[in-house]
Amino acid sequence: MRPPLAHRLNRLLDPLGRASRAAGWINRGLAVCIVVSSVFAILDTEPAVSQAAPGLFLWVERIFGAIFVVEYAARLIAAGADPRYAGIAGRLRYAVTPMALVDLVAILPLLLGELVGNTQLVRLLRLFRLLRFSRLGAFSRAATILLMTLRARLPELLLSLLVAFVVLIFSATLMFLIESEAQPVAFGSIPRAMWWSIATLTTVGYGDVYPVTALGRVLAGVTALAAIGLIAAPTGILATAFAEALRRYHEERTATLDEPEARS
Amino acid sequence: MRPPLAHRLNRLLDPLGRASRAAGWINRGLAVCIVVSSVFAILDTEPAVSQAAPGLFLWVERIFGAIFVVEYAARLIAAGADPRYAGIAGRLRYAVTPMALVDLVAILPLLLGELVGNTQLVRLLRLFRLLRFSRLGAFSRAATILLMTLRARLPELLLSLLVAFVVLIFSATLMFLIESEAQPVAFGSIPRAMWWSIATLTTVGYGDVYPVTALGRVLAGVTALAAIGLIAAPTGILATAFAEALRRYHEERTATLDEPEARS
Amino acid sequence: MRPPLAHRLNRLLDPLGRASRAAGWINRGLAVCIVVSSVFAILDTEPAVSQAAPGLFLWVERIFGAIFVVEYAARLIAAGADPRYAGIAGRLRYAVTPMALVDLVAILPLLLGELVGNTQLVRLLRLFRLLRFSRLGAFSRAATILLMTLRARLPELLLSLLVAFVVLIFSATLMFLIESEAQPVAFGSIPRAMWWSIATLTTVGYGDVYPVTALGRVLAGVTALAAIGLIAAPTGILATAFAEALRRYHEERTATLDEPEARS
Amino acid sequence: MRPPLAHRLNRLLDPLGRASRAAGWINRGLAVCIVVSSVFAILDTEPAVSQAAPGLFLWVERIFGAIFVVEYAARLIAAGADPRYAGIAGRLRYAVTPMALVDLVAILPLLLGELVGNTQLVRLLRLFRLLRFSRLGAFSRAATILLMTLRARLPELLLSLLVAFVVLIFSATLMFLIESEAQPVAFGSIPRAMWWSIATLTTVGYGDVYPVTALGRVLAGVTALAAIGLIAAPTGILATAFAEALRRYHEERTATLDEPEARS
Repeated sequence: MRPPLAHRLNRLLDPLGRASRAAGWINRGLAVCIVVSSVFAILDTEPAVSQAAPGLFLWVERIFGAIFVVEYAARLIAAGADPRYAGIAGRLRYAVTPMALVDLVAILPLLLGELVGNTQLVRLLRLFRLLRFSRLGAFSRAATILLMTLRARLPELLLSLLVAFVVLIFSATLMFLIESEAQPVAFGSIPRAMWWSIATLTTVGYGDVYPVTALGRVLAGVTALAAIGLIAAPTGILATAFAEALRRYHEERTATLDEPEARS
Repeated sequence: MRPPLAHRLNRLLDPLGRASRAAGWINRGLAVCIVVSSVFAILDTEPAVSQAAPGLFLWVERIFGAIFVVEYAARLIAAGADPRYAGIAGRLRYAVTPMALVDLVAILPLLLGELVGNTQLVRLLRLFRLLRFSRLGAFSRAATILLMTLRARLPELLLSLLVAFVVLIFSATLMFLIESEAQPVAFGSIPRAMWWSIATLTTVGYGDVYPVTALGRVLAGVTALAAIGLIAAPTGILATAFAEALRRYHEERTATLDEPEARS
Repeated sequence: MRPPLAHRLNRLLDPLGRASRAAGWINRGLAVCIVVSSVFAILDTEPAVSQAAPGLFLWVERIFGAIFVVEYAARLIAAGADPRYAGIAGRLRYAVTPMALVDLVAILPLLLGELVGNTQLVRLLRLFRLLRFSRLGAFSRAATILLMTLRARLPELLLSLLVAFVVLIFSATLMFLIESEAQPVAFGSIPRAMWWSIATLTTVGYGDVYPVTALGRVLAGVTALAAIGLIAAPTGILATAFAEALRRYHEERTATLDEPEARS
Repeated sequence: MRPPLAHRLNRLLDPLGRASRAAGWINRGLAVCIVVSSVFAILDTEPAVSQAAPGLFLWVERIFGAIFVVEYAARLIAAGADPRYAGIAGRLRYAVTPMALVDLVAILPLLLGELVGNTQLVRLLRLFRLLRFSRLGAFSRAATILLMTLRARLPELLLSLLVAFVVLIFSATLMFLIESEAQPVAFGSIPRAMWWSIATLTTVGYGDVYPVTALGRVLAGVTALAAIGLIAAPTGILATAFAEALRRYHEERTATLDEPEARS
């Protein structure tokens, strides 16, 4: 007896691509489709490229649109294999999960056709599908560990961010007080000085604005030194947290392997 | 029997916001007040914004000023719940603690009214209240660990800073010797060359000054490579210190939980 | 009885330079030749230098070319000492190994003489020989550990790169939407905005393009803050992985020393 | 019986400043002298400052010169307390130690008077005395640990530097091939392209030169991403090495305290 369609589709669309050999190929094929359609959506915004071959972009758009419509329908059917999403009501519950909404958004411009104006902009929504990569088989273990890392030390990371914000505001305020007379356009208010401050504290240093007074330059030097501390803190926190998450991940896996009956 | 006013206020103004449900809400409400009043104080310096709605800024200023005056008075009364700050003399001792001074500074412009000139500048002192966030409940554990981190490895961090200063002075001196003839304005003295040096050693790189001679560019390359070492050292030190502080924090907490009688 | 030529040459050309005192000197001599010939190949591209002494560059080129031809022939003979590369067929198998091809490419311009046009360009292929340094005796242990480090945490590093790419595309897309009207040349398409985005996310910050609108500057600030996270993540991963690789390297060496019979 | 002069001076000039209370004060006083005289030597190069008070700079110079001459003579005498440097011959051996040469260089301009031309330049040699701070009591433990850190992982750090050099040369070579036609001044030779390459690989990004072709910008993006790896590697290595050096330092100190007889 063949399993129902929902189960067969579910096996083929398994996000880890491990259910079967065909699932692996479909998984890889869809990944390629997402990347290629994203590249085209990006290049389409560049007139020098898109006007060179307007027909190509139109047809590429239609073909990938069709693929994604078919994929969306298949995922909607496959969702029924999960007891939570069985039946019509279940499918609707599935359709409002974040991943399903991302998938829906990607095919909206094609479905709505000429109803939606500025289709180029709408087509860019397709880039959200790149988020799907975090669930790819190749990265699923690494993504779990990285998420464990971030979650474990979230308060310390947020505190680093808070300290960075306070330093940002104080350095911008001081620079506004020191430099606003000499350069009223660049440092004439605290919000304006914050543009310099954020470029300095992240060591980006665009160089469009910088202090010209001696005192302002001393403050810029102190701010730039503080930047190193503000960058070093989250790096140190992440290094520690990553080592910890990695150890815990292996311990949990070992514990699971030792007591297989605990999983049933 | 109701507890005295000082004790009831103290429970409501508990900085960790854990004493009661009301304390949590007051804590959050004051945090929002500090953030919003800071945002207004910052935006007030930008003429394009403040002149669009001068009345709004005046009223926002008065409302937050009133809230902070009430809060200051309440904290002064609540301080009496602590035996160290009981009585009038105790309240005065409390009033000169750093946190109480920060709170006082924040309401000065309102209290002194027209006596203080340049009120915009004085109002910026309110930004110091942002320092209070370090004692918020959500961050108190993270702040303890980060402070332990900094304190444990302070000599090494200071030595890194000293080495950075020496490298700064030497690279500025060498660049002054190499480049002062070619660019007398930018590199005509060591203090001037230090402006280039600090921008390079922190990898900010504004790009307003840079060497143009071949030898100067080689020195800039070496300086930029040294910059990576100067950034890597404190990062490595902080990573190690953070792992250590985290371990010690958990050990101390475990030790305290194991021997609860040791706390009494 | 003297060992055959292949074995004697093999001992002299040992990449670790530990087979004998002569091998150490030959090893060092060849390293110097590679460095010096690379420096000359680099300087040769600068007209101000190469036209000052055209004869010098020609003769240096010929001398190093001759040395490398002799070395290549010697390595081809020496390869026979390894049973895998014995005989004529074995030598051909050796000649298509990556390292042998790099060595061959380095002597091509000399062997082909006037047949190959644009010899300066071809001579730059010699720079590939710098890759040989990774097998130098001084670095062989460090290179093993660094490779173990990279291999052990490759999925996490690749995931960091993927996240960086997604952040790159999203920040470029948002900046294109925000800033394309104000600056059509710099932000008129997503590929153009990506140039700004990559300079910001890596904190290079050339400063040739930067947002001018208020919203664009807020996005630039958020992007620059994200940059710190994107830099901190691989640093933390590498720190952990390096500690792990170092520990494992020492464990393996200890295990090997404890059971020497296991090596035979 | 009073100890001989050499021993008494040696106790007073103890670099850690722990021999006696007076030694601590002399140590601190000399540190202040070095810092202040360095600040004056630096400011002296800025005409706007030195011409405002030429007499001040002359007298400051003479006073510190006299202090350093006295200190140098005292250290020469004190050196005799160490059996290695006893007697006239021993003092001469001391005089050629690196630290004694640094001290001598600092007083040369004063001793030689008008014999040495360009005294401002010679006076800058005094900045070398800043190196003495690494032996200050406050930092001696931290300096030991940092030196252990660097020494333990020197091969890996040097290999990182080598990899960085190879990446530098390859990115400069590729950018020269791609961009030299479009921008012959900035990218017309590999040495010129290396100026861009070093600014990008260290994420300094002055922004004086940057690629303008599409292919050049792609290469710049890849180079900037490589930069993150080149910065992350030494940071990770230093973090690991620092943790290790710290642990070993504590173990050695514990071992020494456990077996005090081993020190005699």
